[in-house]
Amino acid sequence: MLNKLKIINDPVHGFIKIPHEILFDVLEHRYFQRLRRTAQTGLLSLIFPGATHTRFHHAIGAMHLMFTAIETLRAKGVEISKEEEKSAMLAILLHDIGHGPFSHALEAILMEDWHHEKLSLLLMNKLNETFSGELDTAIEMFRGKYHRRFFNQLISSQLDVDRLDYLKRDSFFTGVSEGNINTQRIISMMNVADDELVIDDKGIYSIENFLAARMLMYWQVYYHKTASLAEFLLVKILNRAKQLISEGYELDTPKNLKYFLYKKNFKQASEEDISKFTALDDTDVLQAIKLWQDEADMVLSYYCKAIITRKLPKTLSSSEPFSEAFIGEKIELINHHFGIGYGELFVDEIYRHLTPYDREKQPIYLLNRERKKIRLEDSEHQILSDSLAKSTTKYILSFPREILK
Amino acid sequence: MLNKLKIINDPVHGFIKIPHEILFDVLEHRYFQRLRRTAQTGLLSLIFPGATHTRFHHAIGAMHLMFTAIETLRAKGVEISKEEEKSAMLAILLHDIGHGPFSHALEAILMEDWHHEKLSLLLMNKLNETFSGELDTAIEMFRGKYHRRFFNQLISSQLDVDRLDYLKRDSFFTGVSEGNINTQRIISMMNVADDELVIDDKGIYSIENFLAARMLMYWQVYYHKTASLAEFLLVKILNRAKQLISEGYELDTPKNLKYFLYKKNFKQASEEDISKFTALDDTDVLQAIKLWQDEADMVLSYYCKAIITRKLPKTLSSSEPFSEAFIGEKIELINHHFGIGYGELFVDEIYRHLTPYDREKQPIYLLNRERKKIRLEDSEHQILSDSLAKSTTKYILSFPREILK
Amino acid sequence: MLNKLKIINDPVHGFIKIPHEILFDVLEHRYFQRLRRTAQTGLLSLIFPGATHTRFHHAIGAMHLMFTAIETLRAKGVEISKEEEKSAMLAILLHDIGHGPFSHALEAILMEDWHHEKLSLLLMNKLNETFSGELDTAIEMFRGKYHRRFFNQLISSQLDVDRLDYLKRDSFFTGVSEGNINTQRIISMMNVADDELVIDDKGIYSIENFLAARMLMYWQVYYHKTASLAEFLLVKILNRAKQLISEGYELDTPKNLKYFLYKKNFKQASEEDISKFTALDDTDVLQAIKLWQDEADMVLSYYCKAIITRKLPKTLSSSEPFSEAFIGEKIELINHHFGIGYGELFVDEIYRHLTPYDREKQPIYLLNRERKKIRLEDSEHQILSDSLAKSTTKYILSFPREILK
Amino acid sequence: MLNKLKIINDPVHGFIKIPHEILFDVLEHRYFQRLRRTAQTGLLSLIFPGATHTRFHHAIGAMHLMFTAIETLRAKGVEISKEEEKSAMLAILLHDIGHGPFSHALEAILMEDWHHEKLSLLLMNKLNETFSGELDTAIEMFRGKYHRRFFNQLISSQLDVDRLDYLKRDSFFTGVSEGNINTQRIISMMNVADDELVIDDKGIYSIENFLAARMLMYWQVYYHKTASLAEFLLVKILNRAKQLISEGYELDTPKNLKYFLYKKNFKQASEEDISKFTALDDTDVLQAIKLWQDEADMVLSYYCKAIITRKLPKTLSSSEPFSEAFIGEKIELINHHFGIGYGELFVDEIYRHLTPYDREKQPIYLLNRERKKIRLEDSEHQILSDSLAKSTTKYILSFPREILK
Repeated sequence: MLNKLKIINDPVHGFIKIPHEILFDVLEHRYFQRLRRTAQTGLLSLIFPGATHTRFHHAIGAMHLMFTAIETLRAKGVEISKEEEKSAMLAILLHDIGHGPFSHALEAILMEDWHHEKLSLLLMNKLNETFSGELDTAIEMFRGKYHRRFFNQLISSQLDVDRLDYLKRDSFFTGVSEGNINTQRIISMMNVADDELVIDDKGIYSIENFLAARMLMYWQVYYHKTASLAEFLLVKILNRAKQLISEGYELDTPKNLKYFLYKKNFKQASEEDISKFTALDDTDVLQAIKLWQDEADMVLSYYCKAIITRKLPKTLSSSEPFSEAFIGEKIELINHHFGIGYGELFVDEIYRHLTPYDREKQPIYLLNRERKKIRLEDSEHQILSDSLAKSTTKYILSFPREILK
Repeated sequence: MLNKLKIINDPVHGFIKIPHEILFDVLEHRYFQRLRRTAQTGLLSLIFPGATHTRFHHAIGAMHLMFTAIETLRAKGVEISKEEEKSAMLAILLHDIGHGPFSHALEAILMEDWHHEKLSLLLMNKLNETFSGELDTAIEMFRGKYHRRFFNQLISSQLDVDRLDYLKRDSFFTGVSEGNINTQRIISMMNVADDELVIDDKGIYSIENFLAARMLMYWQVYYHKTASLAEFLLVKILNRAKQLISEGYELDTPKNLKYFLYKKNFKQASEEDISKFTALDDTDVLQAIKLWQDEADMVLSYYCKAIITRKLPKTLSSSEPFSEAFIGEKIELINHHFGIGYGELFVDEIYRHLTPYDREKQPIYLLNRERKKIRLEDSEHQILSDSLAKSTTKYILSFPREILK
Repeated sequence: MLNKLKIINDPVHGFIKIPHEILFDVLEHRYFQRLRRTAQTGLLSLIFPGATHTRFHHAIGAMHLMFTAIETLRAKGVEISKEEEKSAMLAILLHDIGHGPFSHALEAILMEDWHHEKLSLLLMNKLNETFSGELDTAIEMFRGKYHRRFFNQLISSQLDVDRLDYLKRDSFFTGVSEGNINTQRIISMMNVADDELVIDDKGIYSIENFLAARMLMYWQVYYHKTASLAEFLLVKILNRAKQLISEGYELDTPKNLKYFLYKKNFKQASEEDISKFTALDDTDVLQAIKLWQDEADMVLSYYCKAIITRKLPKTLSSSEPFSEAFIGEKIELINHHFGIGYGELFVDEIYRHLTPYDREKQPIYLLNRERKKIRLEDSEHQILSDSLAKSTTKYILSFPREILK
Repeated sequence: MLNKLKIINDPVHGFIKIPHEILFDVLEHRYFQRLRRTAQTGLLSLIFPGATHTRFHHAIGAMHLMFTAIETLRAKGVEISKEEEKSAMLAILLHDIGHGPFSHALEAILMEDWHHEKLSLLLMNKLNETFSGELDTAIEMFRGKYHRRFFNQLISSQLDVDRLDYLKRDSFFTGVSEGNINTQRIISMMNVADDELVIDDKGIYSIENFLAARMLMYWQVYYHKTASLAEFLLVKILNRAKQLISEGYELDTPKNLKYFLYKKNFKQASEEDISKFTALDDTDVLQAIKLWQDEADMVLSYYCKAIITRKLPKTLSSSEPFSEAFIGEKIELINHHFGIGYGELFVDEIYRHLTPYDREKQPIYLLNRERKKIRLEDSEHQILSDSLAKSTTKYILSFPREILK
């Protein structure tokens, strides 16, 4: 028994206790420490200056909510062993361990067909070796192979502790208080039926409110048109750099990032790949962008300057795709203004799509008064679920401000 | 020019400044001071123990939001004179001045056909005499007679500062954080077009979020089944007392309240009526209920004890009315348990109805990018408005717990 | 094992769980429900309008902090049984059960030599009978007779959970954010050495900060000159009423309160005394004050009106007593203004005294790195403790505003 | 008149309005945008993971408090022109514009005798050229040359809006709630007498509380022993790098930083110096540290790894300097453990010194009831000021954990 509490300060959830030694060991591992240098919300701080929080902090917050959820379920009579508790906490702590710098979108560029969940699993396995198999159950839970399904649902579903933490955290740091969901209440409504995660009947409005808050955060924050653009530009910049490199250009590039821009074959992650990847973070990408501001390639330097000095292109948004004529007009103006013939490289159409509640993919279940599992949308009390199940799409057109008079 | 700021501490909005002398004078008047002894949310503290806040504080909070709204509109180029500012603040400060003890529901019992808005107007006119006509414009605004309609809309509409304050305040004091709307953001989205209150186009999700939060507060808090019951019992108790009095019983009743329980004709509010009414507050009603716990009439004493000792009847809720058979069963059980023949007096069906966004009565207008006024539900961006425009009804059945085995 | 969590909403601490059945039973008892009608901070809401919170809510909050403290101590290796947990929570839940209406100051008037802690013990014993001795250990802890002293120190010391809750709660509801102490951090620093409550060495600044915050709350809030006056007037009014009654006047007085104003001998608390006392709450006192506004006695009616309409006397404050000459001057002006000969009844000198950290009475102990218990003021790291150990006195003089020109 | 409000989301102060065009222009300038990539609290996020906020956000927050202070003073009758308002806001917005990456401590290394305030002034002058002299008055205020001294005191004194913002902001992001000062209240107590900033008499406890909170933040956060170490290591690393370079080693160094590590003469800031400096930010330093992890020099690589993987040396703290014998012992253990002869390079003694209220350098003035200016410590009401005027020193010894068994 420790006579000293390991505690982490979290302005979002208050003091966070680390109840198992292994959690602390994993947290101290350099794989996990790397997440300190990875922003939770990419370039969002260009729009919401408070949003400088990291994936490191988010992972710890989600781990804390997992603990709270487990304590709640236990108080309702669900038996959960210490081993299960530890493993569920490990699994959520590590759920993003394979996340590359900035957004998901960069993964495809940096490690091609390596999705961050695949990388997370890869790194969990490496850690499992280091810790002599202590992560076995955690990995099973993460992969959805553990026999009690609700653990996986707490890790990854429409109502998992990952979402609960990131919504509340992003709301806190952006200052967009509408996303400040009541994680305590939602967790207090959780229950287990047939080994599946369910919500006590009377929690239906809290769930609807959670889904509505999440939708608001998407359209107001994550899919904010300038935020969408900034994320898009990151991809554009790295793609451009990769293309120039493939065409033989020499770009001044930080060592860590260079490895990924020059390497081609990632079918099998080699030891070197892993070693390089676990050293890669936001500062490498930012350094590259700072350096590339001075590159000769006009497209590359234009967008790098746009990010660094926050002279972002103009955006228009619409619920319909923009017409070819309209886009053509912009291209012509650009060609004319810059005296170039490849204006189309300066016009982008980004689209954003959201289904706030995807009932097909993974329904949310309520436990009704007869203690039967029913789908959220089938409750006689549901009010917003129908609307929330509808998809919405937005189109964002971006082009240089220089062509505005 | 004052060298001293008049400031009121408000845990909800922070420091509240009183920028006009007359506001302070009205605030100090005994009519307004009475609101200190009137709970903003009636007996809700029986369910949410923090909800002990008063109409006094709410009125001041709403006044503060009015000031913020006016400053915002000015910053957007809407010209508003100091006189208009003062009057709008006075009008909202006094909007509930005619509110009787506890809920609206008691008004009908205490002063028959006197709705609290009618009483508010009556008392505003009295104050206007006291303050030599300085409230003239405020009263015009309150009555919707002022030529610039947006002032009245700020005082009373689906998006008025009254609602903005009470939602945020009730959320704060109950601890139901889902209702913690972002009043700053909503107000910052306000604008004026054709002298009507509108919301800047890009504020649509904040408005939908506000409507959703309000709906949640209704079903989770105001229309909570036990809260609904508590409010219903107040009415039931006073009605029973009035009936017993009309049948000749002598009830031990506090002097202030007695006047209203014994008097019959309120067609015209006499000077005495007003004087008595402005002395009436929650403590009078609570005293009566405390005293009536010992009355011989079983119905009266039963419900008075229920309130004071919080031994509230059992409630069931449903989206359908309860069947006569089901109710009949309960009555029989009651008759049998208490050995009486009037069990029906112990069974009540309460119903609660809500249209979160009543677009017929008073639509919310957006100002679109072409600077045209459109209705919220006609925006291409609306997501929840359709759902929020639907009505929902709940039925609550209450009966003594004694008949549960 | 319950499959349903009993939860109470608390805007201060979030959701509060009730982990033992008996806690819930006690909470539902009418003795405890009475605290719903007793303001935690008396008439403070006349100055800080948000401060309408009740002793009921405070007691529940303190119970919650006790639970947190116990969990923390357990995590540090202190063994605490379920029975001890339950008892400590019961003891703090009931620590104010004997509190009369409004402030401590009224107790002396209403039940003479009955201090509220004596009454609390009396009522705990009554409850213990009702619950067949289940409160035995709780009562031992409350009385400081339990062999592990830290339980009593958690209930009543300079760093008990009572203070932790009321400071944070009063700060929350008044909006005086300076008192918003970090209860989580302070509790996380608690430890036990030789069965006494100690604070881990590195928590010293949190403790100094807590003492400084408490001092600020005293001078800014509890001992605010107008707040001091309001509390003083309550005593003055009841004393005046009692005196008039003893002189044979008939005062229109609510039944419950009357019992205490007319009765004389409280040496032994009779069953009737207890029954009457447990029915007495703030509404009885407020009703009396409302009624006495119209009494013939000028002193009584003057001060009753002062409270109800918040036309409070003028106050001056000083760190020295006011001179007899200065007071005499005021009396003369009063005699002249009101045309009376007993002006001295309208001038009051109130004094307020505070020792923020009373190291004589009950020192705070730190556990230093060598795991030795040392007194706060003996730590080499202490900075403010010396200043905080000094006493300060303030004198407040009050007199009618009418004599100001 | 704009029909659109420029608003910045701030989770600390809420919505921040930008009331003057020039403020927005300055904010958009690349000099100012650089501050987005400069952490407000250096490496503090290694200890408090939420503390990732930037100097960019702090500067905007301080600007907002300046606006609030000006509005408050105006409401108290102090005449302040629109030009003065604009200039005071510009001055505070730019007060840290010359801040280099990470802490003050790096400035000495990077630009030798260039203190960041000197650099700030230099950059302000550059901006003033760009904006055709619109910053003239702002620069006067910043330099303390403007005839109304209180403007400079609001920018730089023991009670300036800089401190008010950073304390509240750092408290918010670290989660150390004890530092959460009430900026609203403090500002509401500000006044001007003889063109100097004073505090209304009754604000004394708020000021004492502010000074106590600041002291707590210093010892708990800024001077936290691990935080102190981290900051120290940054200096140590850069000094080591510079030394190695001066000895002829070739270090792989990011281009931007290289300029400053290799250049020697900074007596006069050349155009190139300024251009390089305004491109330098935290990412350059972090990149260097990442790269240097692999350098051959053991001292350099050891500490770079310590920062990146957060394997920080052990620290001890004391209120006395550590004895030579004790330090010698550590050195020997290090020499033995690493098999080296320069163990002294791995032991560091850091010292931290604080005078919470420096009454000699710049006293805080109160305005007493006779409207005379008196020093805080001369008030009859002061309680903590004496303690707060005392200095405290702490010694921190750091050495590799490897020598602990």
